[in-house]
Amino acid sequence: MLKVAIVMGSDSDWPVLEAAGETLAAFGVEFEAAVASAHRAPELVRDFATGAKGRGIGVIIAAAGAAAHLPGVVASYTNLPVIGVPVNSTPLGGMDALLSIAQMPAGIPVACMAINGAKNAALLAVEILAVGGGPLAEKLNAYRARLKEEAAGKTAKLKKRLQEK
Amino acid sequence: MLKVAIVMGSDSDWPVLEAAGETLAAFGVEFEAAVASAHRAPELVRDFATGAKGRGIGVIIAAAGAAAHLPGVVASYTNLPVIGVPVNSTPLGGMDALLSIAQMPAGIPVACMAINGAKNAALLAVEILAVGGGPLAEKLNAYRARLKEEAAGKTAKLKKRLQEK
Amino acid sequence: MLKVAIVMGSDSDWPVLEAAGETLAAFGVEFEAAVASAHRAPELVRDFATGAKGRGIGVIIAAAGAAAHLPGVVASYTNLPVIGVPVNSTPLGGMDALLSIAQMPAGIPVACMAINGAKNAALLAVEILAVGGGPLAEKLNAYRARLKEEAAGKTAKLKKRLQEK
Amino acid sequence: MLKVAIVMGSDSDWPVLEAAGETLAAFGVEFEAAVASAHRAPELVRDFATGAKGRGIGVIIAAAGAAAHLPGVVASYTNLPVIGVPVNSTPLGGMDALLSIAQMPAGIPVACMAINGAKNAALLAVEILAVGGGPLAEKLNAYRARLKEEAAGKTAKLKKRLQEK
Amino acid sequence: MLKVAIVMGSDSDWPVLEAAGETLAAFGVEFEAAVASAHRAPELVRDFATGAKGRGIGVIIAAAGAAAHLPGVVASYTNLPVIGVPVNSTPLGGMDALLSIAQMPAGIPVACMAINGAKNAALLAVEILAVGGGPLAEKLNAYRARLKEEAAGKTAKLKKRLQEK
Amino acid sequence: MLKVAIVMGSDSDWPVLEAAGETLAAFGVEFEAAVASAHRAPELVRDFATGAKGRGIGVIIAAAGAAAHLPGVVASYTNLPVIGVPVNSTPLGGMDALLSIAQMPAGIPVACMAINGAKNAALLAVEILAVGGGPLAEKLNAYRARLKEEAAGKTAKLKKRLQEK
Amino acid sequence: MLKVAIVMGSDSDWPVLEAAGETLAAFGVEFEAAVASAHRAPELVRDFATGAKGRGIGVIIAAAGAAAHLPGVVASYTNLPVIGVPVNSTPLGGMDALLSIAQMPAGIPVACMAINGAKNAALLAVEILAVGGGPLAEKLNAYRARLKEEAAGKTAKLKKRLQEK
Amino acid sequence: MLKVAIVMGSDSDWPVLEAAGETLAAFGVEFEAAVASAHRAPELVRDFATGAKGRGIGVIIAAAGAAAHLPGVVASYTNLPVIGVPVNSTPLGGMDALLSIAQMPAGIPVACMAINGAKNAALLAVEILAVGGGPLAEKLNAYRARLKEEAAGKTAKLKKRLQEK
Repeated sequence: MLKVAIVMGSDSDWPVLEAAGETLAAFGVEFEAAVASAHRAPELVRDFATGAKGRGIGVIIAAAGAAAHLPGVVASYTNLPVIGVPVNSTPLGGMDALLSIAQMPAGIPVACMAINGAKNAALLAVEILAVGGGPLAEKLNAYRARLKEEAAGKTAKLKKRLQEK
Repeated sequence: MLKVAIVMGSDSDWPVLEAAGETLAAFGVEFEAAVASAHRAPELVRDFATGAKGRGIGVIIAAAGAAAHLPGVVASYTNLPVIGVPVNSTPLGGMDALLSIAQMPAGIPVACMAINGAKNAALLAVEILAVGGGPLAEKLNAYRARLKEEAAGKTAKLKKRLQEK
Repeated sequence: MLKVAIVMGSDSDWPVLEAAGETLAAFGVEFEAAVASAHRAPELVRDFATGAKGRGIGVIIAAAGAAAHLPGVVASYTNLPVIGVPVNSTPLGGMDALLSIAQMPAGIPVACMAINGAKNAALLAVEILAVGGGPLAEKLNAYRARLKEEAAGKTAKLKKRLQEK
Repeated sequence: MLKVAIVMGSDSDWPVLEAAGETLAAFGVEFEAAVASAHRAPELVRDFATGAKGRGIGVIIAAAGAAAHLPGVVASYTNLPVIGVPVNSTPLGGMDALLSIAQMPAGIPVACMAINGAKNAALLAVEILAVGGGPLAEKLNAYRARLKEEAAGKTAKLKKRLQEK
Repeated sequence: MLKVAIVMGSDSDWPVLEAAGETLAAFGVEFEAAVASAHRAPELVRDFATGAKGRGIGVIIAAAGAAAHLPGVVASYTNLPVIGVPVNSTPLGGMDALLSIAQMPAGIPVACMAINGAKNAALLAVEILAVGGGPLAEKLNAYRARLKEEAAGKTAKLKKRLQEK
Repeated sequence: MLKVAIVMGSDSDWPVLEAAGETLAAFGVEFEAAVASAHRAPELVRDFATGAKGRGIGVIIAAAGAAAHLPGVVASYTNLPVIGVPVNSTPLGGMDALLSIAQMPAGIPVACMAINGAKNAALLAVEILAVGGGPLAEKLNAYRARLKEEAAGKTAKLKKRLQEK
Repeated sequence: MLKVAIVMGSDSDWPVLEAAGETLAAFGVEFEAAVASAHRAPELVRDFATGAKGRGIGVIIAAAGAAAHLPGVVASYTNLPVIGVPVNSTPLGGMDALLSIAQMPAGIPVACMAINGAKNAALLAVEILAVGGGPLAEKLNAYRARLKEEAAGKTAKLKKRLQEK
Repeated sequence: MLKVAIVMGSDSDWPVLEAAGETLAAFGVEFEAAVASAHRAPELVRDFATGAKGRGIGVIIAAAGAAAHLPGVVASYTNLPVIGVPVNSTPLGGMDALLSIAQMPAGIPVACMAINGAKNAALLAVEILAVGGGPLAEKLNAYRARLKEEAAGKTAKLKKRLQEK
């Protein structure tokens, strides 16, 4: 099965990205993780991106804060779907990273997630690997069913809390 | 081969979405198009989304302006990858649509594009369908090569224009 | 008398919504509370909204953060007045939720409150139920009179504090 | 039947507000219209607001641009539900009016619509007058049904347009 | 000598406004302070504003957060110069209050200060009362001279700190 | 009587500032006008500001767009009240000029107007010169009375237009 | 003498960049111009940037709109000073490009100009080449002197225009 | 060798600026530091800026928060390259300072850094002093090489951490 790569601009982004790793693991999807700043180590990023297919990668998750160029730079080197996670790491609340990732010019797409949206990045990666069906698609169905059950349970709990008052 | 669905909140969004249709056609990817407001026709959206897999759809492109709920609502009904295109249709320059699409809560991902970024939505859809290789992946390689050639040509033209001055 | 329903996208929104419950209780207006994410449990939301009239609901308060689709999705299923409360739950200070709720397209209205404005949501619900007069209208008059008294009292206290300096 | 009042800060707001008048007329709801700047004519606004109930008004729609204080000032004088419409009348695209209306402090609610959202203001007013049922509620059902039909028709038209290409 | 009035929308604004009181006191300018919400106590605000001249007030400082209507409402009732102080009291960092105060429509001016800029409000009030000269103008000259001395002293201290390293 | 000075960063700002000149003229207040960029001609600005009192100036209106430093720089050289007008001259709709003028640090106040708010700048200047009463204060009363009459007339006109339909 | 390179993400940026070319020419500074999208032609950008010193370039001006990664990517490949010009090319008024250029993370600096600020980019490039003195520094002095003369002339013209009224 | 000057609007900015001093020291570049508010001490700023060249300064770093005029005012007095650092010192997260520095009008350039981007200010200063080569250029090469090594090391560490789990 194809793997997912998680790359981040700084190791200080890992606490945000950890949710992506955990989610992929929960779906049984293998992943590799790398730190590779688009600015401080451009050749590393290029090698990482151009070699991804050869290492069995199917989807790349790239996260960065501030002027978050990493997802776009990775995308410039590969045809694999690139998912960008804007990280909230400056006083602007992540708005700078969001615009630096979402507003990619025509030609080179990046799939932008919410600010710090690492979990959804992993879920989208799973959805992409599940296109066409197979066991991953089954797992996604089960995951969605679980979300619905949890929602129902939460209302029950809230009602109980209100009655106990 | 799996198809792509393009759904938009209003038929006034079509001039923006047209670039997605043209790009998919250029890659030989079949697509269906639908108008289905998340607010004015929620059952239509649900039927569209829940039935997508059965109609041979592999990826959904959903575009909307203002409080752009359509991509998120579509994603709530399907495990297929959903690509959201924020449309600039209010005095806020598309910032409302961008945040309404990008800031999806954990659990249900939407791949957010740039404001009016219909072409990239189509390219990402092609990349997703090309995961694992095959003829679409070849076409993407050719597309990227063409982008590079064009860039080189543009510098040549600019230099000529400057010399003629 | 008609009741009010309070629905929220996540149980973590309850601390914000609690002020709505307390205010309704202070006016003697019965309410029900539910957790129902527009994205994680869309059928739950639909059932909640389409069944509201039948359960004796007259006004719905819907609160959500981030890409806050819940109020709009609820409104798409009912003709009851829907009051939306944007919750501050991301690094953007609630601006994402505010725009996702306020910028509803023509056809399906949502009454947007301030960020975290749960108390005003309850007051507006009471005002709506009091249209045409009756005991609730009297209670609103009394509430407003109390606000004015409190204001007068606050100036007196401030003046005293300044003199004691 | 209770009437609706439409009040605006400047007569230059009328082109935006006209959609509210037309929508109310289509639902057979009587309305009065007034120009009354919160700043240039505060006594006029106070008289307008405090006298509204006595003139048979059930809901007030107040629209203003820039530092849009009118809806809040009207609400400070009455317990009737006040619907605020931010008008785009400065270089900030209506963001100033949106925040001046949505961010009302606790105690005095205003139901904020989208920027230039006059049609939804009228629809919300109708929904409020229809709380508890009656002929207006029937008309709202018919209106919603028509929205759904239109949506279906739009997809058919778009598909036809695409085939003709 | 004419006095200054400081009015605020909520007594929770006093910690911000205190700097205005201290500054006025330092210049020997008498002031009165009042709490008077534009929304919760509109008649109080009107009485406060229309009676200001009669109480010997020459300048009014009005502070409020959120949809900060107080300065504009005060200005609508008086020809005295009104200085507005946007208070940071919501998750939007004071941007809502800033726009609600700065973006006043033509006809009724309000002098907007920085967010939480209470000290400058007092200084501007002093400058206004000093127009035409007199002892207040002398005090302002002395104040400015002191600011310059302090600045020079700060460089000296910083240089010393750097040498000691 | 004291005069008003109008200074602007660029002669392209004059079309915006013209409303200030006309308003001052309507009140019979003499004014001088100057072009003096804070950046391109700092000595000119300094001479203009430090000499203002000596030329019989009582209030200074300073207008600029983009990084609008002019009002702050003028204020740094004089104790006269400085009124800043942010001019909309860049793609940011005047938000850059608004923040550059409103967010002055403690010590040196500038009275910030709305974006392009030249008329209110003149009105505030008149209010400042009228502090303490006199003929200017009478004129302001007359001006306010006229605003109220106009407002009443506008409602009458709107009602007539609606009836003729 | 060292040359300047002007590189832009798209040939549609040239109308904005032309002012940079003209300004450099006016100072007698040679420049080369190139089109090289960071995303569509990353190798071109790398070759352009790594080879710049060898071609006698002393300063690089890089301009781009939207998610404007070009200046940062160029800077990642060279130690030459890189000046970034955010181009207004999306509905966000250039705010996306401004943040994508200004908010560079620590380690790789880019000198951000105003939105569409091509002329200042050229002037900064000249200032950098003039560090240490020489004929370019003389020309800068002359340029500044001319700016001041022009400013003085503009006031004279404005005063004349006002008198003629 | 030419020196660098670091000037800040307030001594409370020093904790942010300290990184600039450390970076310059690490490159062996001498610097002087000064506190000089553009508003509170304009003559100090003028003397500082006009005298810089004579004191052997080659580049000026100017930092300020809020309406951050200091960099622009310094630049108005000198032809030396001025690097502006917006400091996050108000509730707006530094957006006010960023726009006040980046949006300089044509004629007088300022090189804007990221919010609190003091380290990059120092690196850009070094790059400017290294134009034309020499030992500083060598040190920059070494610095860049170290950044790349560190990046590689960080990936290794992250992989180890993940394996140990």
